[in-house]
Amino acid sequence: MLDKGLIALDWGTTWLRAYRMSAEGEILASSQPQAGIGNLGTGDFESIFAAVTKDWLEEAGDDAPVIVLSGMVTSRQGWIESPYAPCPADPRSLAALAIPHETKNGRKIWFSPGLSTTIDGKYDVIRGEEMQILGAVDGLGTGRQFVCLPGTHSKWAVVEDGVILDFRTYMTGELFEATRRHTIIGRMMEHDAWSDSGFDHGLDAAEADRGLLGELFAVRSRTLLNALPVEESGAFLSGLLIGSEVLEAQRLYEIGGEVCIIGNPALTELYVRTLSRHGIRSRQLAETMAAQGMFRFAHSVRERA
Amino acid sequence: MLDKGLIALDWGTTWLRAYRMSAEGEILASSQPQAGIGNLGTGDFESIFAAVTKDWLEEAGDDAPVIVLSGMVTSRQGWIESPYAPCPADPRSLAALAIPHETKNGRKIWFSPGLSTTIDGKYDVIRGEEMQILGAVDGLGTGRQFVCLPGTHSKWAVVEDGVILDFRTYMTGELFEATRRHTIIGRMMEHDAWSDSGFDHGLDAAEADRGLLGELFAVRSRTLLNALPVEESGAFLSGLLIGSEVLEAQRLYEIGGEVCIIGNPALTELYVRTLSRHGIRSRQLAETMAAQGMFRFAHSVRERA
Repeated sequence: MLDKGLIALDWGTTWLRAYRMSAEGEILASSQPQAGIGNLGTGDFESIFAAVTKDWLEEAGDDAPVIVLSGMVTSRQGWIESPYAPCPADPRSLAALAIPHETKNGRKIWFSPGLSTTIDGKYDVIRGEEMQILGAVDGLGTGRQFVCLPGTHSKWAVVEDGVILDFRTYMTGELFEATRRHTIIGRMMEHDAWSDSGFDHGLDAAEADRGLLGELFAVRSRTLLNALPVEESGAFLSGLLIGSEVLEAQRLYEIGGEVCIIGNPALTELYVRTLSRHGIRSRQLAETMAAQGMFRFAHSVRERA
Repeated sequence: MLDKGLIALDWGTTWLRAYRMSAEGEILASSQPQAGIGNLGTGDFESIFAAVTKDWLEEAGDDAPVIVLSGMVTSRQGWIESPYAPCPADPRSLAALAIPHETKNGRKIWFSPGLSTTIDGKYDVIRGEEMQILGAVDGLGTGRQFVCLPGTHSKWAVVEDGVILDFRTYMTGELFEATRRHTIIGRMMEHDAWSDSGFDHGLDAAEADRGLLGELFAVRSRTLLNALPVEESGAFLSGLLIGSEVLEAQRLYEIGGEVCIIGNPALTELYVRTLSRHGIRSRQLAETMAAQGMFRFAHSVRERA
């Protein structure tokens, strides 16, 4: 169906990852220009798109590949705003809400929708990471599977038979920065120090389950009472927050067995460490999984078109 | 015992409240100069103290009153650093750790200790609010009683027969500011708007008990999915955080019956509203309760001296 191959742009707030893929889903070429939408003005989108795809489109000539875009470039702050597809969702339901657009050069391109959930009174949205989740699906086992994408806004998704059943976002990374930079607990911290033992003590505090509002202030109290060395307090805060996230996700989704973690190695390693304390195995995948997810999405777009 | 009366200084980071009290604990005069320790340099303490107490000491002449100071003025960033008295604590155990000091004018003054707890693996510290708690004790019923001091760092204390058994600090107010000023959820907020309905929906979200890291991000998702009007999202965040604090405190201390709330009326009203949803009655007291607490503390200091 994608006999001319695919050009896929995973275009977020802080990065742009562009892929040229074969009809079989192999990555033939890729580029990562410094062009996250966070720093762009209106009108920049078209010219950056043209520059990034120029060589690939010239090589293709008349055999025009399918072109898809996902991520924050499809948000109100992006190039073309697309709606949210509700959970449960799969490539076909996403493709049904994709927005076609013709560039000034007469190229037809497709903007993926975001993904939303309102299941059980939760409210949540994704733009971009859903392609990483879809990309991981092929490698997952049968039955209910769990995917975790740690970061500024960590995501946990429940997947079954290629369908994203539900997901939940945790403000873990952003709260780490906001509390250590803008509250009293950051004042007695050595921001560049790391300590595995501090991290583990933070996990202990999270697992004691006394509640986050109290434990956050206690980071300072522990230091004042000489129960936590200043140079371990940053890692302690990290452990407290990641431990709390895993606890919240476990309660929501009754997570067990194996979790598939997609992210940068240093961060995913902390999640592996946390999950192993709960007897949960984990498998790590690279963030380029988005390319595989967009390949699956593009197949459904082509079926629709 | 305090036959010459008392001068009591409740001296915190952002305020100084000075009281001249009679032998019976009546407030004869008070002043609130703009002199929180947050903006003072070394050496300022002595001169501000002299200015604030000058008239009162001249009037007293040879009948020198007892002079006590509490709050952040007793911290490392303050005038004289005092230790922490561990819970359970009462005026006598606090007085045992008070630090005497002679001013340049030859006046003997007493710095109260802070209060700490390490009960059940919690770690927590107070400097200043313990005097408000002690001040409220006389008006409390018999048996186990609960005192709440809402604010930047909200405190909940468990009191029985005049003894502070334990307490816990929640980073509620500071997290409200840090998240609305320094994270993504503040971007779509009207910071000056208020909405009772938004606050109540925030309480609903807290009581659903899905965990704070997820609910914080959901403030944004609710707005994007049109489940929360932008002008209600600030009040929603307030309800989410205060509701979470009350839930944490309830779980820790099995709070029931009546709670004594000490703070400014606008803020305590939100706590009254929250507690009433849990069938808990509340009584509101003014922050000047610190004067009564320092009077009790001064009695024990005088017994010791």
